[in-house]
Amino acid sequence: MGRDKVTKKRRSREPAERQRKRKRSQIVSKISTSSVRTTSYRRLRNGLKNQLAFSEDRLASIHRTALRVLDNLGIRVLHAEARRKFKVAGALVNEATKIVKIDQTLIEQALASAPSQFTLHGATMEKDVVLGGDSLVFGPVVGPPYVSDLDYGRRPGTLEDTRNFIKLSEHFDVIHVQTTNVESQDIPTQFRHLKTTESQLMLSQKPPFIYSRGASQVLQALEMVRIARGLNIDKFCERPFCYTSINTNSPRQLDMPMCQGIIDFAEAGQMLIITPFTLAGAMAPITISGALILQHAEALAGIALSQIVRPGAPVVYGSFTSNVDMKSGSPAFGTPEFVSAAFGAGQLARHVGLPWRGSAATSSNLPDGQAVYETAMSAWGTVLGGANFMMHSAGWLEGGLTASMEKFIMDVEFLQMLSEIVQWEQLDDDEAAFQAIAGIDPGGHFFGSDHTLSRYRTAFYEPLLSDWSNFGTWTEMGSKTTSVRANEIWKRALQDFEPPFMDNAIADELKDFVARRTREGGAPPES
Amino acid sequence: MGRDKVTKKRRSREPAERQRKRKRSQIVSKISTSSVRTTSYRRLRNGLKNQLAFSEDRLASIHRTALRVLDNLGIRVLHAEARRKFKVAGALVNEATKIVKIDQTLIEQALASAPSQFTLHGATMEKDVVLGGDSLVFGPVVGPPYVSDLDYGRRPGTLEDTRNFIKLSEHFDVIHVQTTNVESQDIPTQFRHLKTTESQLMLSQKPPFIYSRGASQVLQALEMVRIARGLNIDKFCERPFCYTSINTNSPRQLDMPMCQGIIDFAEAGQMLIITPFTLAGAMAPITISGALILQHAEALAGIALSQIVRPGAPVVYGSFTSNVDMKSGSPAFGTPEFVSAAFGAGQLARHVGLPWRGSAATSSNLPDGQAVYETAMSAWGTVLGGANFMMHSAGWLEGGLTASMEKFIMDVEFLQMLSEIVQWEQLDDDEAAFQAIAGIDPGGHFFGSDHTLSRYRTAFYEPLLSDWSNFGTWTEMGSKTTSVRANEIWKRALQDFEPPFMDNAIADELKDFVARRTREGGAPPES
Repeated sequence: MGRDKVTKKRRSREPAERQRKRKRSQIVSKISTSSVRTTSYRRLRNGLKNQLAFSEDRLASIHRTALRVLDNLGIRVLHAEARRKFKVAGALVNEATKIVKIDQTLIEQALASAPSQFTLHGATMEKDVVLGGDSLVFGPVVGPPYVSDLDYGRRPGTLEDTRNFIKLSEHFDVIHVQTTNVESQDIPTQFRHLKTTESQLMLSQKPPFIYSRGASQVLQALEMVRIARGLNIDKFCERPFCYTSINTNSPRQLDMPMCQGIIDFAEAGQMLIITPFTLAGAMAPITISGALILQHAEALAGIALSQIVRPGAPVVYGSFTSNVDMKSGSPAFGTPEFVSAAFGAGQLARHVGLPWRGSAATSSNLPDGQAVYETAMSAWGTVLGGANFMMHSAGWLEGGLTASMEKFIMDVEFLQMLSEIVQWEQLDDDEAAFQAIAGIDPGGHFFGSDHTLSRYRTAFYEPLLSDWSNFGTWTEMGSKTTSVRANEIWKRALQDFEPPFMDNAIADELKDFVARRTREGGAPPES
Repeated sequence: MGRDKVTKKRRSREPAERQRKRKRSQIVSKISTSSVRTTSYRRLRNGLKNQLAFSEDRLASIHRTALRVLDNLGIRVLHAEARRKFKVAGALVNEATKIVKIDQTLIEQALASAPSQFTLHGATMEKDVVLGGDSLVFGPVVGPPYVSDLDYGRRPGTLEDTRNFIKLSEHFDVIHVQTTNVESQDIPTQFRHLKTTESQLMLSQKPPFIYSRGASQVLQALEMVRIARGLNIDKFCERPFCYTSINTNSPRQLDMPMCQGIIDFAEAGQMLIITPFTLAGAMAPITISGALILQHAEALAGIALSQIVRPGAPVVYGSFTSNVDMKSGSPAFGTPEFVSAAFGAGQLARHVGLPWRGSAATSSNLPDGQAVYETAMSAWGTVLGGANFMMHSAGWLEGGLTASMEKFIMDVEFLQMLSEIVQWEQLDDDEAAFQAIAGIDPGGHFFGSDHTLSRYRTAFYEPLLSDWSNFGTWTEMGSKTTSVRANEIWKRALQDFEPPFMDNAIADELKDFVARRTREGGAPPES
């Protein structure tokens, strides 16, 4: 204390400017050696207010109109067993046209039995995620046939690429679940589900994704998840450990593999996302509310089937409503209409009391400015709409045709920033701030104040990708663009990657299963 | 009618797939020749819900603590006349330390007289903008010494660059006011205000920006605005026709030119934005709430001075609170902390009943991914925080050191999209959508439906910059990146630019004024 006073006195003789500079450089050198900030991106809760697209009246009208679509017009169900199940449950089925008309009572029964919130389980409790309420789950891109990176450009995806995205998705905490990401085109389609499911289970503890491409593939993949989690069939079917996404064939159609997927996943108690593919102006009415009416009707039809199969089956209300470029007919993403549709979709999902899935998407052909602003628009729209699950949230490019390694890293940075924002809570007390202000002379600075020193390690988000150095330093360091820095980051992450723990016996059982199914010819996709 | 039926019948014999393709190509060719969508970006009203950073209790505590800072600690006011005015109004002034202590009553009087909403006038009513309520005004970048574009890279700004940004800001409706944007470094500082003000007035009808760099410059520039608007002094001083931005020298200091600016603008009834430069961890406490307490205290001090000078003077509550990189001490923008601070700043501005100014900003050294995601974060934060005025909303780069031509275009696209979102309202009725859905068979498409055909011209936002073509077409067209396309767009806009109408007599008077003041030696900046 006495010593502090002496130091203080001595310093007060220095010119103010020199004092400041010395202090600052001391702090800066102290800080550069400080430890990394602890982050918590695993169980996100979205504290933002939901933005609305519609008044309560209008929302009710859209819901009513969707019920009218199901009751008066119906939906074409191509799958005979699904039609039979609908019929037994009380729907009006025309076997000639395959049109199933579903009345309000049936929909209300389904909505009553579908859980409004549930947990999707990982290999460990740490990797569990909650769907519903104010939870927010980010999943990586899924579906693109192509992969791209700065080194080799755009090319068909291979299993190695798939495994790389799985590793990155495991590495970053802000990615909560797995997908098969880019298509492993070097693996014949009858074996692909085996390889992609095995890769997700061996390289990651996060809940895996399974495509609904027919019962044979689905049942094999579910079996693999069961083995990996070390459960018997009954225990496995009690809770969801993996998930699939069901796209309706808008307008008003559910095809064979989609119906089969709903049946198989619901029977096994695994998580379903029912996502109509309602592009306004193409497969749906050109107005956003019109597209949402169709989306709502189709989603409710799929949800109803899941609950007919197994009341209480965990199901997520999915939306993918966007618009098309009316000049070319191609889909557009991250548009203002996409955002408004997301706000409306969130309202509809809450109206029926189900968890809601949205997306981050862009039409851009490379990970540049357009890719980032369209993704930022769609991601903000989805998060502000109150989504519980944001699919395609890292790596998506080119309307879903390409998975980009650099874009993946840019998106992870964006998701981490979003996570900080939605979880932000300032608990610091105002008296401490007043004292800090009182301790610094007018025109001075806070670099060396106790208030700063006791907090600087954890005060701010530390970027993964952003370069905050000034132009001179940045130029000296090689004028690296965001893409170049992203390229270095994913390479380092892959280099350092260590597969998570898996019990040897389980790993062997899994390998044996894959080997046996492969010898038996795998399972071709069904359509 | 009969003819339609015949056509319909004939078509029904075609295979469904061929029918669809033919229909679609007909629609597409019809659409390509269609007229451009009408947009309305001039008088934006933000229909989104404001996001909050603090509870009501906490907000009140921050406000109270800021009042305590002003009352107990005070603010150093370097300007003698400003101190005198504070003293006359009842503040406690210490002439030795230049510290002015302002009590709650004085602040409350100022807040009672400052208008909660007012109009900033352009050359025509069409270019008027409203500050306050749910209005949303976008202003371009202001302040950078450097300019950059794809052709010539980064270099010191010249008057020609300044004029180019003024032209672009006039060209795009979504930019509502002018600034001096990049510094015209080829013009000596004693003449620069004459040239930049003249350029804004001759090339644009939107409200111009004037730097507060001493009374001589400010009074000359105000005189020019008065001449350009064809008003006598009394009429000019009745309503605001131009604006300035006042940065406090945080912490707790108002310097000479800033005080002088407040006095001159308030006396002339012109618009002031009082913006503390409170970077958390550097010139302000390291916590966001601490930085906001300081920001609030400093803003209130400046606002109080404006109202002491002239009760009712139009003043905007400005905020620029962000954080610094604790490793290097450099400011960071578009961070999660920036967004949370924006939410809080909006609450504080509404708490004191004043229009609020935020910013769109980034630290990126070039207009790539980082620039776009940081700008998207800060812009969303500002708009969700409920800002009435977003400064630096187009062209800002490199922490405000560079104004980029390509970034300007990227930002305009983003602002247009934001405008569509904040103004979105879906009035279309659900019965029409139901009928449209009823008219299309399951698995069909809506391209040719009447519902689509009667709406496709105006249904969707048409992008300025985004390229939605598929990878093949995009490659054939030269694989143009967002920056390359932006480069083409600003060049075309400049090429096509026509200065707006100005009465010859007024133009001559303005030229004469500039020539005379130039002969007389202009006016050097004061500090």
